[in-house]
Amino acid sequence: MKNCEKYKVGYFMPPEPSMDWVTKDHLEVAPQWCSVDLRDGNQALIVPMSLQEKIEFFQFLVKLGFKEIEVGFPAASETEYEFLRTLIEQDMIPDDVTVQVLTQSREHIIAKTFESLKGAKRAIVHLYNSTSLAQREQVFRASREEIIEIAVSGAKLMNEYAEKMPETDFRFEYSPESFTGTEIDFAEEICNAVIDVWKPTPEKKVIINLPATVAMSMPHVYAAQISYMSRHLHHRDCVVLSLHPHNDRGTAVADAELGLLAGGDRIEGTLFGNGERTGNVDIITLAMNLFSHGVDPQLDFSNMPEIVKTYEKYTDMKVHPRQPYGGQLVFAAFSGSHQDAIAKGMKYREDRHMKQWMVPYLPIDPHDVGREYDADVIRINSQSGKGGIAYILEHNYGFHIPMKMREEIGYMIKGVSDHSHKELKPAEVYETFKKEYINVFDPIDITDATFRKNSTYKGDDGYTVDIHVNIAGTEYDFTASGNGRLDAVSNALRQSELYTFDYTFVTYTEHALEEESNSRAAAYVAIADSKGKVFWGVGMHQDIILASINALVSAINRQNKYSHFITD
Amino acid sequence: MKNCEKYKVGYFMPPEPSMDWVTKDHLEVAPQWCSVDLRDGNQALIVPMSLQEKIEFFQFLVKLGFKEIEVGFPAASETEYEFLRTLIEQDMIPDDVTVQVLTQSREHIIAKTFESLKGAKRAIVHLYNSTSLAQREQVFRASREEIIEIAVSGAKLMNEYAEKMPETDFRFEYSPESFTGTEIDFAEEICNAVIDVWKPTPEKKVIINLPATVAMSMPHVYAAQISYMSRHLHHRDCVVLSLHPHNDRGTAVADAELGLLAGGDRIEGTLFGNGERTGNVDIITLAMNLFSHGVDPQLDFSNMPEIVKTYEKYTDMKVHPRQPYGGQLVFAAFSGSHQDAIAKGMKYREDRHMKQWMVPYLPIDPHDVGREYDADVIRINSQSGKGGIAYILEHNYGFHIPMKMREEIGYMIKGVSDHSHKELKPAEVYETFKKEYINVFDPIDITDATFRKNSTYKGDDGYTVDIHVNIAGTEYDFTASGNGRLDAVSNALRQSELYTFDYTFVTYTEHALEEESNSRAAAYVAIADSKGKVFWGVGMHQDIILASINALVSAINRQNKYSHFITD
Repeated sequence: MKNCEKYKVGYFMPPEPSMDWVTKDHLEVAPQWCSVDLRDGNQALIVPMSLQEKIEFFQFLVKLGFKEIEVGFPAASETEYEFLRTLIEQDMIPDDVTVQVLTQSREHIIAKTFESLKGAKRAIVHLYNSTSLAQREQVFRASREEIIEIAVSGAKLMNEYAEKMPETDFRFEYSPESFTGTEIDFAEEICNAVIDVWKPTPEKKVIINLPATVAMSMPHVYAAQISYMSRHLHHRDCVVLSLHPHNDRGTAVADAELGLLAGGDRIEGTLFGNGERTGNVDIITLAMNLFSHGVDPQLDFSNMPEIVKTYEKYTDMKVHPRQPYGGQLVFAAFSGSHQDAIAKGMKYREDRHMKQWMVPYLPIDPHDVGREYDADVIRINSQSGKGGIAYILEHNYGFHIPMKMREEIGYMIKGVSDHSHKELKPAEVYETFKKEYINVFDPIDITDATFRKNSTYKGDDGYTVDIHVNIAGTEYDFTASGNGRLDAVSNALRQSELYTFDYTFVTYTEHALEEESNSRAAAYVAIADSKGKVFWGVGMHQDIILASINALVSAINRQNKYSHFITD
Repeated sequence: MKNCEKYKVGYFMPPEPSMDWVTKDHLEVAPQWCSVDLRDGNQALIVPMSLQEKIEFFQFLVKLGFKEIEVGFPAASETEYEFLRTLIEQDMIPDDVTVQVLTQSREHIIAKTFESLKGAKRAIVHLYNSTSLAQREQVFRASREEIIEIAVSGAKLMNEYAEKMPETDFRFEYSPESFTGTEIDFAEEICNAVIDVWKPTPEKKVIINLPATVAMSMPHVYAAQISYMSRHLHHRDCVVLSLHPHNDRGTAVADAELGLLAGGDRIEGTLFGNGERTGNVDIITLAMNLFSHGVDPQLDFSNMPEIVKTYEKYTDMKVHPRQPYGGQLVFAAFSGSHQDAIAKGMKYREDRHMKQWMVPYLPIDPHDVGREYDADVIRINSQSGKGGIAYILEHNYGFHIPMKMREEIGYMIKGVSDHSHKELKPAEVYETFKKEYINVFDPIDITDATFRKNSTYKGDDGYTVDIHVNIAGTEYDFTASGNGRLDAVSNALRQSELYTFDYTFVTYTEHALEEESNSRAAAYVAIADSKGKVFWGVGMHQDIILASINALVSAINRQNKYSHFITD
């Protein structure tokens, strides 16, 4: 691809890269979470939220469990100022939630920022300035010293303004914006200069936030930068080290996770990764990754369908069908082998009452995020297999399809999906199955059958049956005996001199269908013709005897469908 | 979140985890790429592709530069069999492209797989069986030895079948499916058992593919597994180590990248990460991440809009607006400070003819993937700033807005976006700007102006002007002199005894507008009232004199709009 020579790595490795963190293989606790949905997320929307929408989205974030929420840049936007005032004046900020506001390091902006917080019980004031080489050279045209002075003068002003508002419990945050494009020693210098102004204590920590404003490196390089900063920040025990990754390289989740291993304490991100360009890190994925390793994320994503709906309503963005944990397709199995393994895994789990989750192809239990197996997991298209189709028929409709019948049904259903060129919903799978197999009464339709016990038949218990049957429009009465009821019916049918019934019984099973309103039985009969070709039929009836007769008749009618031994 | 105790880590750390790879900070060369769009991608579509669609998509993949393309599972699906036969029989596989087919380890399936390849010049036959603890216990209910026997017997059969088809150049691939849920020593054992059957040479390597069938760990753990396998595979110099990550944890890109650092040679993935559940790794992101570090990815993604369009057409999936490199919004800057930095960065780059790319907030040059600055980068909504709006007016319409005028225009345009609650397209920004500022001729409209040079005026060169003017519907003629033409016009207007013109000149600039059809001038005049309030006006005309007069009149009319000194 041409033009690649115009690029080179634009990030800066620490002088002594530490990779100690790789020895830890997973995270043991959830980080502090800070939602920036209403600032970084909102500013990247084609149509940012209105005041009323912001209030409702704020309440939604509180409901999900966020304790720190960045609500905007009140000094830069009237809407954001009004929004914050509304939250404070209408007492909408719960006692365990802290709002966070962004400010540039300019006196009139800092003044307006503090003014906007009047009456708040607590707040995080988040100071930032751009520190990258590119921004210093191209945008600010300022020396390192001048850039540090911007940060330090703002930090001092914040001390002064906060002192004048003792009724509010202020916490301070500083971001060297465009950290990932900043020489690491300069990032260290400027962060420490700000920390030295703020003089944090273990009781009153400051937040140092190191954003991947633009992701520029592989994830372990970002982690190495975080590790370096973690080891070189002044008063480290008084600092909450915060990460704010963006997803330019598709690695925001990895940046966040490795960054947490490397020393990060806190994550700034958004729901479904909304945010500038490729977005912020997706807090839902991070939280659910922790969950899937047995760590309580301290946020509640148990009703994912509702979260998706709310998110889409307020942002007017769509959640991608393959978005981890939240997307429509992320638990879906279309392929036969996956469906089969899931069905077996679920059964194995049920049979053994397993506590630990370990079902093939399902990283977590869809129920834990409010999803359904039937609608979301086993989905039927032309790539699907017998296992998935049997699963649908069993779990949605109560049919325990005999193992040997499954392959035939599988091919039949897949063929319907292939020809109609669409996915089949469970109801369509059932309709297709029913139409082909259940109570097929054409051209043979037994309209009456009366049994009597026949103790003399070959010395065994047996039955004699009188059947009334309609074959291709003509009515007949036959009587015959057999060693069972089904055998008797079969023998009765063979009395017909017009047609040659060429079949032998192969197998027969029957079970009760678990239905709410009435209890019916399902019977499955397989017969084989003289060439060994097998035909299945399914019977359904409240009377188990009639269910089995219906299954036999269905099998014979299906044999006729393909062999045409009965002609009108 | 409840239920988290039902999870624990389900992956297996290598006995001697090697993290040597972390000392490398970026990739130096592109891996071998294998597209699995037509197999793993296609099987996860709600409606899989038809035969004709598959053929066209194959040709599209070839055009993008893929040299290895998995085309399906020909023994398991009639459509996939037909597709492969069509490719071979109609000679659609270029000489430098190898098709890859998947097969289970069962003799009739292997036989049919080789049969499907009859006449192919070269092919990769890809054998797999599931090796994870969960699948062995729950699905296959088989011992380790039995699972190895499945793989080994298949591998042997492949040797035999290949021997019978000397006209085809076969390469073999083996995947321990569900590798990430497999004990690492067992993965090592089964892969080496297969390698030992195939006896590869440096000239005829085998591919060992280690899929994250379901992603189960943090990315560095997968890399540690790859590193272990790379160091323990037999005949390592005869093995191409392939990675096949899925995105369940949102880390497929990181898994692939760290896995490549740790010893991987090859990537199986799809365009935009289509594939089972959360999808496969996105090859476009991987390739463009290399590109952004100055490494030629050996695939051509330079026309991203066309790639998106083609992908969406064949898969019926949408590319998310925040999908790295390809999404609609990934170069978009709505926020004022980002727009300002981009505009400054672009100008800095132009002025200095910089070779290396280093523009703030743009990880790569959008032009390199066929995107436009105007449509894709600077976008105007209620969060935008003066810099972005000035950029649009300059780059799309040729106006060099004076620095001091930008803030006023910025607030005006943002207000329009805020009130209409929508994004403004460049044409709407221009229309709004034009309506407010350019050639505003109500209530004052100078319909004629005749100048004569006036050498006597206070001893300087000066001008006298006769103007014909319509003020609020009444016609007037005025004559006056001034030290310049604009001054003369201004003095002429002040002759009106009906109205008090309360303003002083503040500034004036003019430039030619670069237009194709005609050359016009744009003039900018700022006046201030006695309270110091500034009003801008813009004039446009082919005559530079009239452009400046139009600007003055526009400024006065805008002053009137807010001060109402002229009443009807």
